[in-house]
Formats: sequence, structure tokens, C-alpha cells
Amino acid sequence: MYSEMFKPESDLRRQKIQTALRNAKADALLLVDNADLYYVAGRVFCGYAYIPVEGEMLCFVRRPVGLKGDNVVYIRKPEQIAEELRSRGVALPSCLLLEGDTLSFNEYNRLAAIFPDSKVSGEGTALIRQVRAVKTPYEIAKIRQSAAMHDTMYRRIPKYYAEGMTDIEFAIELEHAARQHGSLGIFRIFGHNMEIYMGNVLVGENADNPSPYDFAMGGAGLDTSLPVSCNGTAIRRGQTVMVDMNGNFTGYMSDLSRVFSVGSVSDKARRVHGVSIRIQEAVAAMARPGVAAADLYHCAAEIAKEEHVEEYFMGHRQKAGFIGHGVGIEVNELPVIAPRSRDVLQEGMVIALEPKFVLPEIGAVGVENTFLVTADGMEKLTTCTEDIVRLD
Amino acid sequence: MYSEMFKPESDLRRQKIQTALRNAKADALLLVDNADLYYVAGRVFCGYAYIPVEGEMLCFVRRPVGLKGDNVVYIRKPEQIAEELRSRGVALPSCLLLEGDTLSFNEYNRLAAIFPDSKVSGEGTALIRQVRAVKTPYEIAKIRQSAAMHDTMYRRIPKYYAEGMTDIEFAIELEHAARQHGSLGIFRIFGHNMEIYMGNVLVGENADNPSPYDFAMGGAGLDTSLPVSCNGTAIRRGQTVMVDMNGNFTGYMSDLSRVFSVGSVSDKARRVHGVSIRIQEAVAAMARPGVAAADLYHCAAEIAKEEHVEEYFMGHRQKAGFIGHGVGIEVNELPVIAPRSRDVLQEGMVIALEPKFVLPEIGAVGVENTFLVTADGMEKLTTCTEDIVRLD
Repeated sequence: MYSEMFKPESDLRRQKIQTALRNAKADALLLVDNADLYYVAGRVFCGYAYIPVEGEMLCFVRRPVGLKGDNVVYIRKPEQIAEELRSRGVALPSCLLLEGDTLSFNEYNRLAAIFPDSKVSGEGTALIRQVRAVKTPYEIAKIRQSAAMHDTMYRRIPKYYAEGMTDIEFAIELEHAARQHGSLGIFRIFGHNMEIYMGNVLVGENADNPSPYDFAMGGAGLDTSLPVSCNGTAIRRGQTVMVDMNGNFTGYMSDLSRVFSVGSVSDKARRVHGVSIRIQEAVAAMARPGVAAADLYHCAAEIAKEEHVEEYFMGHRQKAGFIGHGVGIEVNELPVIAPRSRDVLQEGMVIALEPKFVLPEIGAVGVENTFLVTADGMEKLTTCTEDIVRLD
Repeated sequence: MYSEMFKPESDLRRQKIQTALRNAKADALLLVDNADLYYVAGRVFCGYAYIPVEGEMLCFVRRPVGLKGDNVVYIRKPEQIAEELRSRGVALPSCLLLEGDTLSFNEYNRLAAIFPDSKVSGEGTALIRQVRAVKTPYEIAKIRQSAAMHDTMYRRIPKYYAEGMTDIEFAIELEHAARQHGSLGIFRIFGHNMEIYMGNVLVGENADNPSPYDFAMGGAGLDTSLPVSCNGTAIRRGQTVMVDMNGNFTGYMSDLSRVFSVGSVSDKARRVHGVSIRIQEAVAAMARPGVAAADLYHCAAEIAKEEHVEEYFMGHRQKAGFIGHGVGIEVNELPVIAPRSRDVLQEGMVIALEPKFVLPEIGAVGVENTFLVTADGMEKLTTCTEDIVRLD
């Protein structure tokens, strides 16, 4: 299935899942979702990973041909899983968890029917997302590498600008640059209706166009089939250009936003941008293992209020309900930094903080960085300048 | 919700769905999936479209703010839908269809619980996919436009090649070119574990690396998190370069593959490429309304056998199980041109035919074109040369 090098890492992840299964009083987890398979097996395959509360993981593989390993079992259809477990002397689970938030209703029922004597629950997504929220040292290294590559590309952003560009013309150059810097292109998001191309480039008044997606920022998009990000707005002097683009350089995401401008922006834009930085610093200073995610949100909202910029906080015509989120294999992992979040920070979580503002007619301001939660507090993994950078 | 111009088109699509609901003896369809919402409403929104077997569609919208229209009802959570229907005098359905193949198990159950007195079924996906398989004249115009833009970009492919490039270096230039030619970037695929970036560029022996995805061709990919397409192979003289890239220029996909080479390819490669063209012509000549999709597949497989190239047909180490598929809002719509397909061709379907071959050490050969099923037979919408084109 995977290289020998990856075996200890896979074992560690399996053990984390097994601890969570014991706490949930469940006997096994059956995974199908690509992000989850990549997590447990170190690669995407078409098939199923079966993790019992005790013992080794089994990978039931439909495609690709040619995977090797003691734990690889080729099948043509999922109905063979029960028989394959029996033939290996693995007891069928009394309580089996499936990924109720990503498996389709029809596929869930097909899988549940394989285990007619088991109690089957859709809590598998919640369980694996809790496990995935706390990164292993191997994962942290992957995210550090992605963040470093992301950061390098961002430092070069101004060189891709040419006078007279529209948002989409600029975005296309940045996409190209990101790929040349090693981006894998794909933007993995949790949630079946969440979609975007490589990220968001928001210029001027387009920042105030609301989108249907549950991202921090919107934009009208170029087409009603994907109404988010660029809409063809020309980049004008004194407006802002917020770049919030794909950091998937290693299979793990980092998340990074910076603001650019042609000419200088108004004092108001600079002031509100400064409030974002102040919020980020206050939240990061407060964040450490044991702190409630909701308290971080309230800290941010409180500062926005003190500074009399609530009107623009996390959007203007439409507001996002969070100021941060976990990142990892997907860009929107746990914890969620939102007012009613029940998440509590743990060492090893990786969190993007993005306290942003939308100023009508000027554009979006604010910063986003990816942080690692350490025993001592937050370590910022993305370090390029937080100032509004001139493109011209 | 949408411009007045789109109203007659939306009405036509609704009526097609209502006919299908009557045939299925169902009272209503509740849609959530972005591709389905875009189909019925002409735009993606976050919410639900409720289509009763008689009467107007209602759009229950959570985001974005600001949508207008007689049929727009803002809600905060789906539980409000039943109340909103009652308050409008709409009878709750006896039999409601939900999208069982795209809704997650947990979301399906949440929606089903809103209608405790209804018979709820997950057959909504099958129904809407059948409806979407037969395109309206408006949709055909969108696909024609996408195909024309796609074709224009493909004619220019050789100019993006530079000596010494690897597959990924070439692919990055083609992605950039596609975006500059108006591609919306996003590649909409049906099926939650189906993913690719902008398409597939397969060079030389990488064409024979199997992938986990249910695409016609594979490739190892650059990373185990997305094991498909380019893997860093250098483009070498005498090997083939198959380009099968994104045709989403209008919210509707077209699908187009062509083969390129540096230097000339072997007689064998040219011969097998010719078999692909012969298969495509035979299948296209046979295809017309009323013909079974399975018969088209058998026609293709028969020619591959006659020509003694079965070994390479639709892959070598791993084979795809189809030679064509519908295209529309998503790249893999109905009908499926596969041996056990029960689909029957209808006027207005749009089908990509891709009888391809993988020659170990040489690469992939064959063509793919997008066709419209007319009353008289197949009209090819993608018309650039089908020869193997030299890059140098």
C-alpha cells in the first residue's frame, strides 16, 4: 500500500483512531472518503479502509491495480468486505462507524447492509475529523513545507502584476506562478457543495459581492455556475487586492491571505487593515492548548467593536460566521473559530486565523496566517510581510 | 433568482422534471447539489430547490444575500421548509425524492425528518440525471460555445511546448493557456471521490500507470494525495503526449483529447491511433436516437478485437470500463457507453466518445470528441485535426 517508511506514521494514525474508537465505544471504522484514505494509508485509492478498535488496518482496494502490502485486499465490490474479514478471522463489528457526513445516502446504505448484525452509525466523519484535527509531527512537517513554499510564492506576487490588469488577468498569472512554485493545484475542501478553483482574488467593490459558499470572503465570480472570486473588475488605484490562494504544495494545505494595492490606499483602509493585524495578534497571544475556540472568536469580535469597525467585520453585505479554521489535508478542518464552536484548542492543531474586513468601494483588508498550536502558544508558519504591499 | 431572460429556460427544465416526477409517481423533488441547483435555477446558491409535480418551483436560499424573485424564500435552516410550504398553501408531498447519490447520509436524514408523513426516497439523483442527460436547445448552445473555445485553444497547443519540458511543465503552460482562453478552471465531476485538477496530460510510459479514479486514462500523478495525470516524466522523442483537458468555458463542459509528439512516433503508434479514429467513426455512424449505449460499446470493442489491439484498448495494465459518457454541467453525465449500460440514446444528448489505447513505453493514443445526438445521427462539436500533431 505504502512505502515501508510510511508504516510507523500509518501505525501512529491508526492508534489515534483506535483510541477515539474506544472512547466512542465503537468496534470499527470503515473509511471511503479520499481525504480520510489519504490520512490513514498515505495515498488515495478507490476502496475502503477498515480500522478495528484492536489490531491492524485492512485496505480493501478496487483501483488502482498493483498495490502491494500485507494489509491490501483486492475486491470488486464492497459486499466482499464481510467475507474477507471472516476469512481472516476478524470478528464483524458490533458497532461500526461510517462517514455519515461524506458518504452519500445510497452508498451508506449499501455499506451498512453488508453488516446486518451490526449497529451502524454515521458518526465516523465526526470521529475522524476530531482525530485529524490534531496533527502528527509528520503532518506538521508537511504543513510547514507547504507554508514555506506558499510564503515564497507570495513574496513574489507583485512581479506578476502589470498595469491595466483586471482581477481575473492577475489571478491567472498567480495561478500559473503557484503551479510553477509547486502547487498541486487541487483545493481540497470538506463539504460536498463547497467549491472554488485555486482560491480567491478579490479586487475593490467585488469584495462586497456575497457568494453562496461558506468561505470567509465572497466575490461575484465570472459565471453563475461558480459565483465566487474574480468577476472581471479592473484593478484601480486606491482599491485593495486581497489574494487568498491555494497553499496545497504537499498534499497538506496552508492558508495565507495578503492585501496588495496599486497606488496608496486611504487612511481608513490602512487603519482597518491594522485592526485585523491587532486582532490576529491578540487572538494568537490568547490561543494555547485548553482555550475554547469560541473565546478566540469573541476576543476578535470584541476588538472589532472597540475599534468601531463591526460593520465591516468578516464581510459587509454578507458576513462569515467564523474568524478561523483548522487546516490540513482539507482547507476547512477542525477546530472552527466561531461564536458557538465547542472546539477546544489542543497541541498539534494547525489553525488559519483570518480576521478580515470588507470596506465597500475600497475592497477587502486584513491578513490570514497559518499557525501551529504548541504547548507554549501559537507559532506562525507564514511569515511574509503583513503590510499592504504596492503592486506598482 | 435569475434574470427574466432565463425564466422560459427555467420553466422548460422544470417541466421536464415534472414529467419525470409524474412517470415516477412522485409528488416533489428537493434539490441541494450545486450542479442540480445550477440546472434548475441558472445559478449556484446555498439552499434548496423544491419542485412539485404541478406548479412553480420554490428556491429556499441560505446564501448569498440579495437574490430576488417571486420564487425566492430566504431561510436560515432547512427545517423551515415545511412551514414555508404550508404558509404558501403548497401541500406537503406524499412521495418526495431526494438526491440519494449526492446528499450525505446525515444531511439526507435531516431533510427527510422535515417530512415525517411523506414517503421519502433517494431516487432523486437518478431522476435528475436522466432529465439532465437530454439537453435543451439553450444548453446545447452553451456546450457548442464551450466546445468552440476548447477547440480554439487546442489548435494552439504546440505553441506552448518548449524543448526539454517535462509533462508537468507542459501541463502548467496548457492550464495557463486554457484560463487565458476563458476556461472557468473548475472541473465538475459527478461522484464524491472523483477529483482531478484541470485535466490529464499523459506522457510516454506514465500513460500505463493506473490511477484510483474512474476516468478513461490514469497516470501516476505528482503526489499520492492526487495520484492521476503528470508525474514529472520528460517529454521524449517518439513518445506520445495525450492532452485531455478541461473544457469548462461556459458552465457546461466539453470533452476533447488529442495526441501530440516530439519527433515522429512509431508505425505501431500511428496504426493504433488510426484504429481509435476508425472506432470513433463507426460508433458515431451507428449512434442515433433509440440505439442502446451498450451496443455502441460492443461495436468499439469488436473493432479493437478485429484489429488485434484489445490488449491496449482503454488501458493496458488497468482498463477503463467505458468508451464514452454524457457531458453537460458535469463531465460524466448520462448516458454511459459501457457494456452493461441500460441507457438508450435520445435526441439532445451530448456524448464524449473516447476510444483510447495505451501502448506501454510509447504512451496513450486515440481521440476524444464531443458529439450531439441529433434526429439524424451524431454531430461532432470538436473539429480540430485528429492526426498526431508534432510539437516540434
